[in-house]
Amino acid sequence: MRLGEIGEFGLIDRIAGKVAAGAGVRLGIGDDAAVTETEAGRLLLSTADMLVEGIHFDLSFTDPFRLGRKSLAVNVSDIAAMGGHPRHALLCLAIPTDLPVEFLDRFADGVISLAEEFGVTLIGGDTCRSSSGLVISITLHGEQVPTRIIPRNGARPGDDVFVTGTVGDSALGLELLRRGERSGHAVERHLNPSPRVSAGLSLAESGMASAMIDVSDGVLADLGHILTGSGVGARIDASLIPLSPYFSQRAPDVAPDPLSLALAGGEDYELLFTAAPGRTAEVETLLAACGVTATRIGSIVAGSDVTVTAADGTLIPPRRRGFNHFAP
Amino acid sequence: MRLGEIGEFGLIDRIAGKVAAGAGVRLGIGDDAAVTETEAGRLLLSTADMLVEGIHFDLSFTDPFRLGRKSLAVNVSDIAAMGGHPRHALLCLAIPTDLPVEFLDRFADGVISLAEEFGVTLIGGDTCRSSSGLVISITLHGEQVPTRIIPRNGARPGDDVFVTGTVGDSALGLELLRRGERSGHAVERHLNPSPRVSAGLSLAESGMASAMIDVSDGVLADLGHILTGSGVGARIDASLIPLSPYFSQRAPDVAPDPLSLALAGGEDYELLFTAAPGRTAEVETLLAACGVTATRIGSIVAGSDVTVTAADGTLIPPRRRGFNHFAP
Repeated sequence: MRLGEIGEFGLIDRIAGKVAAGAGVRLGIGDDAAVTETEAGRLLLSTADMLVEGIHFDLSFTDPFRLGRKSLAVNVSDIAAMGGHPRHALLCLAIPTDLPVEFLDRFADGVISLAEEFGVTLIGGDTCRSSSGLVISITLHGEQVPTRIIPRNGARPGDDVFVTGTVGDSALGLELLRRGERSGHAVERHLNPSPRVSAGLSLAESGMASAMIDVSDGVLADLGHILTGSGVGARIDASLIPLSPYFSQRAPDVAPDPLSLALAGGEDYELLFTAAPGRTAEVETLLAACGVTATRIGSIVAGSDVTVTAADGTLIPPRRRGFNHFAP
Repeated sequence: MRLGEIGEFGLIDRIAGKVAAGAGVRLGIGDDAAVTETEAGRLLLSTADMLVEGIHFDLSFTDPFRLGRKSLAVNVSDIAAMGGHPRHALLCLAIPTDLPVEFLDRFADGVISLAEEFGVTLIGGDTCRSSSGLVISITLHGEQVPTRIIPRNGARPGDDVFVTGTVGDSALGLELLRRGERSGHAVERHLNPSPRVSAGLSLAESGMASAMIDVSDGVLADLGHILTGSGVGARIDASLIPLSPYFSQRAPDVAPDPLSLALAGGEDYELLFTAAPGRTAEVETLLAACGVTATRIGSIVAGSDVTVTAADGTLIPPRRRGFNHFAP
């Protein structure tokens, strides 16, 4: 079915029909603005991400359902990285007129499936025509009490640096997709990432994390944001970087330097955070209860330099520092 | 200067540098999510609009400053239409790599100038590359106490229907732009609309409006949203539709049916609202204090039909019913 047959308001009705009633929603899709309430004593967290066909996704790599899930997941990950509860989303779509309605149905199903998994309700947005590819822009609201929010700027010299799960899988997955693979652990992590909401909330509630960010641009680039924000440097031990067995096995086939893929490859959507020294076991236990591993990968130091050392103590020059959308 | 020279984070820094501290903002641009507070007892209003080059705007018609103003104005208008106070905005941009940084500076200046005019603070967003034209997606937050919010669904049979200011100017302006004109009242109204925030707030505080919407799709189309939401019909008197002297003079040159341009032309960003009968003078006085005229254009009736009558009582068939983004 073509979009022209159902029209803009037909499309909105179709999406609205998939949305169940949500907590805190006084007025959802269908008015000039949505009306929601923030719980007493809580602050509102707001994040927005835009995904552009040909830049962030390739419709020959992914299917609409997983694209819908990922579009919301990258926003949920930002709320997780603040230690927040994800709550309400606004979805904007610029749609090529030849995109079948069935594609949009599956896309919306993907958005809704991830939303339901994380307690998010779709409350509004906008739809319009695109003169070229599909553009997806999502704003997500979360909330948290003021004292539990974990910003980027709280890292102090001496703090340990941790990362959840494993890194590099998503970058490996993208490389495998480019080479024609369409399944496997790394491809799945690239196309269908799992934001670390319960880990972020546990860290927020424990008060253990001094700074936190999600790994979207790459471990080193995202660590850089914490360091700049906090006015500190870091020493990272490359031998501690947590890699999946799949990554260790497949990365050497596609990357001349697997370590650089793990350090600079983005879109893992793991949490990178700092905590006061000597609490490694406590952090590990806390996150194990959320079903996620936490690995200490280095320390915060005074100054502003980042050094990455191999197991034998030699310095590794980080060749790639993450993704810059407008790099020459 | 090219975007590649300053990079994604350079661009964000450039925009962030233009933003003054804002009320209720605990953490603005630069973290995974912005942190804001909603005043005690108030609800959050959220609206989002997407503007796509070649669909919503033509860079040969407008300049970046006015494009920036309008991009935010259309969202501010949605908050005005709920009777809300506009507060915080998230700006997402998908940017063609060859767009000069100077364009983006002027665009950001335009966004900020309208934001400052209406007490809005930019708190976050996203920037990325576009594979084709410029795409702008803005989410705006507003707030209001629960009892003052004016939804679309409160119109009752017998209510009068009002519209602020004059309608049709924006559609006339677009037509004149297409014919090569670049200035004048109608062109300015199309490129640089003024959202009716103080009128919306006055109506909210007075409790006089039973339903409200802003005129973005056209008077008849937007009235249709109120009617559908409220489960009622309407009788509109075409001779009462408020037209500017400029419209009355120029519209016959470009439109075979000026009335249809006024009734169906969108993007006026006036407020269309309903109020209990017999309060016309009160409504006019209230809005005059905001510097805006209010004109009664008809009444709400039982049922679901919309009739448009000429001064002599004959029925006018509305030929064009407003803009549908996916119309065949």
